[in-house]
Amino acid sequence: MSSPSERKARLIVHGDQPYNAEPPLGRLRAAYRTPAEDFYVRSHGDLPHLEPETWRLTVDGGDGVTGELSLHDLQTRFPEITVTATMQCAGNRRADLRAVAPVSGDPWDAGAIGTAAWTGVRLGDVLRAFGVTDDAGLHVAFESHDRVEGRPYGASIPLAKAMAPETLLAHAMNGAPLLPEHGFPVRAVVPGFAGVRSPKWLRRLAVQRHPSDNPIQVDDYKLYPPDVTAESADPTWGHTIDTMPLNAAICEPDRGAALKAGPNRVRGYAVSGDRAIVRVDVSGNGGRSWRQADLEHETDAPFAWTFWSVDLDLPPGEHELAVRAWDAAGQTQPALPDDVWNHKGYLCTCWHRLRVRAEA
Amino acid sequence: MSSPSERKARLIVHGDQPYNAEPPLGRLRAAYRTPAEDFYVRSHGDLPHLEPETWRLTVDGGDGVTGELSLHDLQTRFPEITVTATMQCAGNRRADLRAVAPVSGDPWDAGAIGTAAWTGVRLGDVLRAFGVTDDAGLHVAFESHDRVEGRPYGASIPLAKAMAPETLLAHAMNGAPLLPEHGFPVRAVVPGFAGVRSPKWLRRLAVQRHPSDNPIQVDDYKLYPPDVTAESADPTWGHTIDTMPLNAAICEPDRGAALKAGPNRVRGYAVSGDRAIVRVDVSGNGGRSWRQADLEHETDAPFAWTFWSVDLDLPPGEHELAVRAWDAAGQTQPALPDDVWNHKGYLCTCWHRLRVRAEA
Repeated sequence: MSSPSERKARLIVHGDQPYNAEPPLGRLRAAYRTPAEDFYVRSHGDLPHLEPETWRLTVDGGDGVTGELSLHDLQTRFPEITVTATMQCAGNRRADLRAVAPVSGDPWDAGAIGTAAWTGVRLGDVLRAFGVTDDAGLHVAFESHDRVEGRPYGASIPLAKAMAPETLLAHAMNGAPLLPEHGFPVRAVVPGFAGVRSPKWLRRLAVQRHPSDNPIQVDDYKLYPPDVTAESADPTWGHTIDTMPLNAAICEPDRGAALKAGPNRVRGYAVSGDRAIVRVDVSGNGGRSWRQADLEHETDAPFAWTFWSVDLDLPPGEHELAVRAWDAAGQTQPALPDDVWNHKGYLCTCWHRLRVRAEA
Repeated sequence: MSSPSERKARLIVHGDQPYNAEPPLGRLRAAYRTPAEDFYVRSHGDLPHLEPETWRLTVDGGDGVTGELSLHDLQTRFPEITVTATMQCAGNRRADLRAVAPVSGDPWDAGAIGTAAWTGVRLGDVLRAFGVTDDAGLHVAFESHDRVEGRPYGASIPLAKAMAPETLLAHAMNGAPLLPEHGFPVRAVVPGFAGVRSPKWLRRLAVQRHPSDNPIQVDDYKLYPPDVTAESADPTWGHTIDTMPLNAAICEPDRGAALKAGPNRVRGYAVSGDRAIVRVDVSGNGGRSWRQADLEHETDAPFAWTFWSVDLDLPPGEHELAVRAWDAAGQTQPALPDDVWNHKGYLCTCWHRLRVRAEA
């Protein structure tokens, strides 16, 4: 295993306290399952250092049924499941929104995303062992060992998603134990939802009648209209970001690359929280015309991204590359950052664009 | 019951052979459940005249299990279910695409849509009575009594959708037997899917390994990229339109209306095949700024549209009104017809815009 400093050197670091970093896009596109050391890291507090032997998960099933599980309990009392799923930050591609007006938060490029084979147990299996049954009105609240402004990190998901077969308590990523920065020893993995709802370094989960009352859930990760400011934002009004929208990004060539004129391979990813990607259009002229990319997707991974590639014939000169995807409902992405701008810089789903230069 | 000619006089008629018509938008917005005589009519062939006493539905459950059901069988052997759901044509709002380039098909305004309380039996209950069980690889093919270019109308849906609790064989609409033009005596109702997958005047359904081989399924109702023409279209390549995308329309005021300057009520609908509408933005200046509309939705109708309304303060002069909706995944609509244009004119999901004049 590489050292923490070796891993940090591989990434583009947005901040150290908390530690937030993403891979260069070319490296991100190199493997369908992102190596753990190339996987983006989003932290809200310090990095907890936990001992697997003494770690315990407290489970409150509601109605007074509570208990504790060790890592050994999780690994021996429930069937082991592996789900290949994409995880992404709600702020992925936030940097593109700054062309419109300032936004709060780290200026993520399109690398605050990654896909892994997550291994663990079904959260639903654990909940059922504590007597929980499907009930549309309930929520599962998570609490973690990292601390944010003096409180444990906390977030919640609807019980229906917690009981869904894809939702895990994961202890391994791509066949190896979780790295410390990815939630060792156990994290939630809620496929299709924003990363904020997949807490790391878990210590407690509770079935309850209301969403988590943690500020992460109540105040942050809300989508507001463009006229709302930090001062005017009313958290009871904003839309709670759970399922992630349709998006796509160009990973190769690099922004500003100097290419050789002629056919150039363009590669990237497309992703949707809970729908299949059915088409990816790529433009060499800023969207005036489009070519359809070849798609690469694992059919047994409905919650994982789609890789795409296409050859564009670029004459000498400067070109604006652009990509837009289409989902199984025939929905596509808006063209401009202005169409999706919000002061928190979430869900930047406009066409991904970058300029390159082709030389004769 | 009104006469066929009285009903036709209420609608904007695009064609008589086959009969295609839609209501004026103000009337469409008058009731959450659209009266049957104001409901758009999309036909592909002649109007069958069927006798309820002699009507039979042939069911082929696959693996040699077949049988026939009368209307009385349907009404007595299965639980009666009512589902409030929106039905819409894949070509709804096609007229807006003609600003870019010609498209084939009738020039529907935003009225090729309606919502009804559909009463009938669950298709899944009927299929289970014929021994059908969930199997991801299978399809349910429908065949109808109307004839299109010498063949019966036919279309299919994935078995998973056929077994979903919302999918019906319906014999009534808003509490009354289906009108002849809406499929009397029995039609399919596949909530969230394009209307083409809810055949009227049913005569046969079959569980099979492949989608329907009817030209309606194989050749039509495919979404193509903008560079594809009628000549170059390869039906094996286009995306089969099933679940409908996010959309929204202004129903009041009328296009070109002369209004009194000052506060003006703007009303319309928003709709998504299978996601909730979480926000509707309305603009009085072509999208330079937006106001959030009040939303009106029945919570027990996840497959029905959302009505919205907002007061816009319009100074004297000409104004471009626009609307865009946001779904539960934080996805919104593209701005321009050019962003969604395709030669068949399907899935026109760009912002709906219209010009009005306010007079002092």
